[in-house]
Amino acid sequence: MHPFTKRRSDSVAALGEQRLIAAIRGWLGTASLPAPFGIGDDCAVIAPARDRQLLTVDPVIYGRHFDATVPPAAVGAKLLKRNLSDIAAMGGRPTAAVIALTLDPCVSLAWLEGFYRGLAACARRYRVPIVGGDVAEARGALAASLTVLGAVTALRAVTRAGARLGDWIYITGKLGGSLRSGHHLTFRPRLAEGAWFARRPEVRAMMDISDGLAKDLWSLTPKVGRLVPKTPRSTPPTIVPALNPKALPRRRGASLRDALCDGEDYELVVALDRKTNRAAFERAWRRAFPQVPLTCIGRFVRPRDLPPDAIRLSDYHGYEHLG
Amino acid sequence: MHPFTKRRSDSVAALGEQRLIAAIRGWLGTASLPAPFGIGDDCAVIAPARDRQLLTVDPVIYGRHFDATVPPAAVGAKLLKRNLSDIAAMGGRPTAAVIALTLDPCVSLAWLEGFYRGLAACARRYRVPIVGGDVAEARGALAASLTVLGAVTALRAVTRAGARLGDWIYITGKLGGSLRSGHHLTFRPRLAEGAWFARRPEVRAMMDISDGLAKDLWSLTPKVGRLVPKTPRSTPPTIVPALNPKALPRRRGASLRDALCDGEDYELVVALDRKTNRAAFERAWRRAFPQVPLTCIGRFVRPRDLPPDAIRLSDYHGYEHLG
Repeated sequence: MHPFTKRRSDSVAALGEQRLIAAIRGWLGTASLPAPFGIGDDCAVIAPARDRQLLTVDPVIYGRHFDATVPPAAVGAKLLKRNLSDIAAMGGRPTAAVIALTLDPCVSLAWLEGFYRGLAACARRYRVPIVGGDVAEARGALAASLTVLGAVTALRAVTRAGARLGDWIYITGKLGGSLRSGHHLTFRPRLAEGAWFARRPEVRAMMDISDGLAKDLWSLTPKVGRLVPKTPRSTPPTIVPALNPKALPRRRGASLRDALCDGEDYELVVALDRKTNRAAFERAWRRAFPQVPLTCIGRFVRPRDLPPDAIRLSDYHGYEHLG
Repeated sequence: MHPFTKRRSDSVAALGEQRLIAAIRGWLGTASLPAPFGIGDDCAVIAPARDRQLLTVDPVIYGRHFDATVPPAAVGAKLLKRNLSDIAAMGGRPTAAVIALTLDPCVSLAWLEGFYRGLAACARRYRVPIVGGDVAEARGALAASLTVLGAVTALRAVTRAGARLGDWIYITGKLGGSLRSGHHLTFRPRLAEGAWFARRPEVRAMMDISDGLAKDLWSLTPKVGRLVPKTPRSTPPTIVPALNPKALPRRRGASLRDALCDGEDYELVVALDRKTNRAAFERAWRRAFPQVPLTCIGRFVRPRDLPPDAIRLSDYHGYEHLG
């Protein structure tokens, strides 16, 4: 469905602001809450939080993250799921969300209804109330930015920092070909999996893969060799990921390059303490998530210890914004 | 300063994503925090919250909320202050913010630096850490959406609901001519004032005035006559604001129409319990905020009790988005 219409009567301009906001409330339905806990006051009021919280924001932009070929409901769901993937990557659960919509007056009401209904269905599925938002006008634009508040589910939030020399690198699911296969719309954010990792002390670091493993993995790679504390003033050895090209689980039809460089995988990558009993860890995973592959794809090593057949990551690049 | 440049070397495209994010961290400086409490992980990690929280989102959009005549630092400050005005309107204090930036690759680096430095200076002034964000590309766009998390400062969040028949209507400051006078850039969000109102039980409802009093006041107006509980099934009498045109404090050069219809006042309007000792209330205000006018501009009445000289609010309209 094309998001823009030339017939004023079919456009958001025909409703005007007040009736548009009333319509949005209707479309969100039970995915929102009555004011002041939902839409309709200066701020949404949210319950106290006993545990540490998480906050993240991600947009969808017409011409960038979706086009006229994507059903509007899928765009709404994707907006939420992209953010949930970030919450999952810390081992958290979502608690509330607010949406900032920017649109041209020519945006089609039918498109917008589909978008909000898709967002609402997804919000109900993942139990994230949409508690507020803003609607603003901008010529030629159609974009929505969602902010999700979350809570840690374990004793800790799992960050990107914490991996060490020798740690094992594991990923969930398969990589590559997300756009071609429709995975970028149909994916399930790894919330349960992320929460499971957060409860396992042997998981030292975690992130989600959204711009391609070849780019994202550098954020998980230890910056210095932390196993040499006795020589703190010597130049620390650099550490690199040694990835086994045969181990990398690829989506059907995806080449090695696709698996490394394509964006929008929305899988989790974790660093596992090198001293972990990996067989026991993998058995526990299979009991918890029998349907979801978990694969050891390599480990963090010193450059001189790179096996000759390891992937030369510098030959690959992930998705570069503003390229 | 014009936000767009034709010279690639002066544009954000010259930096690319990674170096741009590093630059943004530098510009934000101490207004941000190291990951995971600030920029640099999948989510920002935020302290637990003992009290109820507030969540709000508002954007600034090029061509809508600012143009090339506004200094970029003022745009950054305005983005934060608009949101702080919403936090103030609930009687809250801000605790953290995340920013979603959408920009064309031709946006000038110098402009963006000014914007972020202005945002950072304002964030330090109001003690709101900028804990995360997102940067996305969109052709022809320059927009930023800020989400602010807050906490209630009193035992309650003051909502728009709660006003009753006979309640007095008070506003802070003066109204009208915000764009002409530069008030839309120089205003101080009424955080201290909002927190003060929240601690006064006689304040029954509160909101900020951002789209013009003539439009916004309807949100504070009681929907039914709550003073007639004995006849619950009879049609409840409508209630209207009776505003005294002579009492309305106007900014220098602002007409009555300007004071009612111009947007971006960012003042607070409250409903005060009709049984309040108003002289004592006003004295307490003057002790707390000797520099800030607080004016009784009218009260909520039944239509048949409207004084003949009351402002006919239906003759005026505030700022209509998507008009």
